[in-house]
Amino acid sequence: MEQFSYELLHIDKHTGARTGVFHTPHGDIETPIFMPVGTAATVKSLLPSTLKEIGTQILLANTYHLYLRPGSEIVAKAGGLHKFMNWDRPILTDSGGFQVFSLGDLRKITDDGVTFSSHIDGSRHIFTPESVMQTEHDLGADVIMAFDECSTYGCDKKYARQAMNRTHKWLERCAKAHKNGNQMLFPIVQGNMFEDLRIESVKFVRDYADCGIAVGGLSVGEPSEVMYKMMDVIRPYLPENMPRYLMGVGTPDYILEGIERGIDMCDCVLPTRIARNGTAMTSCGKVVIRNGCYKEDFSPLDGECDCYCCQNFTKAYLRHLVNCKEILAAELLSIHNVTFLLNLVKGAREAIKQDSFAEYKREFYAKYYQK
Amino acid sequence: MEQFSYELLHIDKHTGARTGVFHTPHGDIETPIFMPVGTAATVKSLLPSTLKEIGTQILLANTYHLYLRPGSEIVAKAGGLHKFMNWDRPILTDSGGFQVFSLGDLRKITDDGVTFSSHIDGSRHIFTPESVMQTEHDLGADVIMAFDECSTYGCDKKYARQAMNRTHKWLERCAKAHKNGNQMLFPIVQGNMFEDLRIESVKFVRDYADCGIAVGGLSVGEPSEVMYKMMDVIRPYLPENMPRYLMGVGTPDYILEGIERGIDMCDCVLPTRIARNGTAMTSCGKVVIRNGCYKEDFSPLDGECDCYCCQNFTKAYLRHLVNCKEILAAELLSIHNVTFLLNLVKGAREAIKQDSFAEYKREFYAKYYQK
Repeated sequence: MEQFSYELLHIDKHTGARTGVFHTPHGDIETPIFMPVGTAATVKSLLPSTLKEIGTQILLANTYHLYLRPGSEIVAKAGGLHKFMNWDRPILTDSGGFQVFSLGDLRKITDDGVTFSSHIDGSRHIFTPESVMQTEHDLGADVIMAFDECSTYGCDKKYARQAMNRTHKWLERCAKAHKNGNQMLFPIVQGNMFEDLRIESVKFVRDYADCGIAVGGLSVGEPSEVMYKMMDVIRPYLPENMPRYLMGVGTPDYILEGIERGIDMCDCVLPTRIARNGTAMTSCGKVVIRNGCYKEDFSPLDGECDCYCCQNFTKAYLRHLVNCKEILAAELLSIHNVTFLLNLVKGAREAIKQDSFAEYKREFYAKYYQK
Repeated sequence: MEQFSYELLHIDKHTGARTGVFHTPHGDIETPIFMPVGTAATVKSLLPSTLKEIGTQILLANTYHLYLRPGSEIVAKAGGLHKFMNWDRPILTDSGGFQVFSLGDLRKITDDGVTFSSHIDGSRHIFTPESVMQTEHDLGADVIMAFDECSTYGCDKKYARQAMNRTHKWLERCAKAHKNGNQMLFPIVQGNMFEDLRIESVKFVRDYADCGIAVGGLSVGEPSEVMYKMMDVIRPYLPENMPRYLMGVGTPDYILEGIERGIDMCDCVLPTRIARNGTAMTSCGKVVIRNGCYKEDFSPLDGECDCYCCQNFTKAYLRHLVNCKEILAAELLSIHNVTFLLNLVKGAREAIKQDSFAEYKREFYAKYYQK
């Protein structure tokens, strides 16, 4: 495991925001970092060479999707995910837990694992902690997530406790089944929106955290204040000497609030998904490029952005591409949106080093949310 | 017009194949050349930077589509097509003729021009030689095509003659309306599949050819022998001192047969269209990448290709992307297919210089068509 280590460089004097370096077998990651999501071993519409050009340090891939297509044994035969998708920088795979629980009626949970029907062809499958570890070993990402149960937002406390306990038992089984020293297993804190459960969970799972710990089950529909509260209550119990990963978070405010609460890594499909719908995040807020007001707007999408899209194209052109449903629209807006979030966390890292994270956040909010 | 000139470098000793350089305001084009098609001011799925990397020397854009969306006045306000789409190399625009005639019941032809309904919203429009010249001036491509009538394959000789005569009258009007010295007007030879009409047409239109002439109305459904015959009959009448453009041709055999008959330029949506359907042209023939036989094929799509796709990805990965309907499949296969045709014409240029075009063609056919 000596291939993994976390170097804490600085903690902002006025907030809990921290910056550091996470060393992995496929290279160093400057934290806090945003991870673009490559669900099916591709960050939708972006060439790996483009992802590198815009400064992507690590990306995420989905175990559930890759298990079904092309099958993890194919990826293993290809020499692992890095070779398969031609990405030589760090990769993180989730455990597929969130996806199988999202299948609703198509899945059945027992203490042993989850039986589910494929959303593609209805075929039956089972995920257990042991099978998921095997699948994640086949995929060969640098960071692999434990198999957990993310209980639904709004469920009662009894169920939330049951799911949490199951998550903890599955974590024990994952840790036992995980044998590959080239991959770091991140345990996941659950507990739904119950403060005492969250604290119980972080205390339990941190014993399994070697060089990384994750917070799951947030940003699942709850009010933002509730999410921030959950992060506040677990914060004193999070280990200092390893990266902390807030799962599934990708809006600028959630990213910044997470960083303020000591989060080092986050991921979301948001930048590429909204790009495909013709929406951009810019330094002055969201832009729905289809709008008629951009018809003759020959200015760049974001005058403060240094990406290929903003340096070379106008809003009028982007609007034209979106209107014509051209693939290039998704590509250019994805380039911009991912760059935007990578620049957001880069700015955060620099601000933290200068103990000015609170100011950085305030200034960003003032422009982005006009508040 | 001194911004345009054609330099004939060499004619293959054993065939009619020729190589040269076409000088334009946005740069030199080595001929024979293949032009990727950017219908709506984008070569579908390809960034301009990628098009440059793979060696695209000139691309085509469609007047009909751009007239409707975003409107040529928007493109003019943007500073022309080059600026609008961020492409600083040569561009050619067609006249929209072929598109409006393809509308079938939605259009009505008179000697004045063509009245048609938009395929997008049904709105009524009229194209005349004068209006098309204005639209092409607004778009600002280096090479602009005259407004012609491409009569349907299979029509009777009477109609073919009528359409040809109309094409000639419209050419006179186009020439009169064309005032922009930064743009070169290419007249178009028509005449359907009638040898005498083809000869009559080439004799007429060549008088309007300043530095470029086009052959239209071929590759529209006729047997290949008929197409080759038409090219053979007009060949003695084509001017030597300017580029000759065979419109809408993009299969490897049509490209090579065209070149053998003295053609210098051609274009087609084929490479990008079949890419979006998961099909590739390779040195060993067509590959339908979805096929199950590629499931565990970890070799490159085309072992002889130097493109980004072939250098970095396997057939198994490409098949996975196609199966998952990932945008990246269209991008990587488009990169490959366009590169493939650009390499095909590059090889032709080199072979011509060494008087070995016939051998080049024969060797290509043997591998590609296994014949």
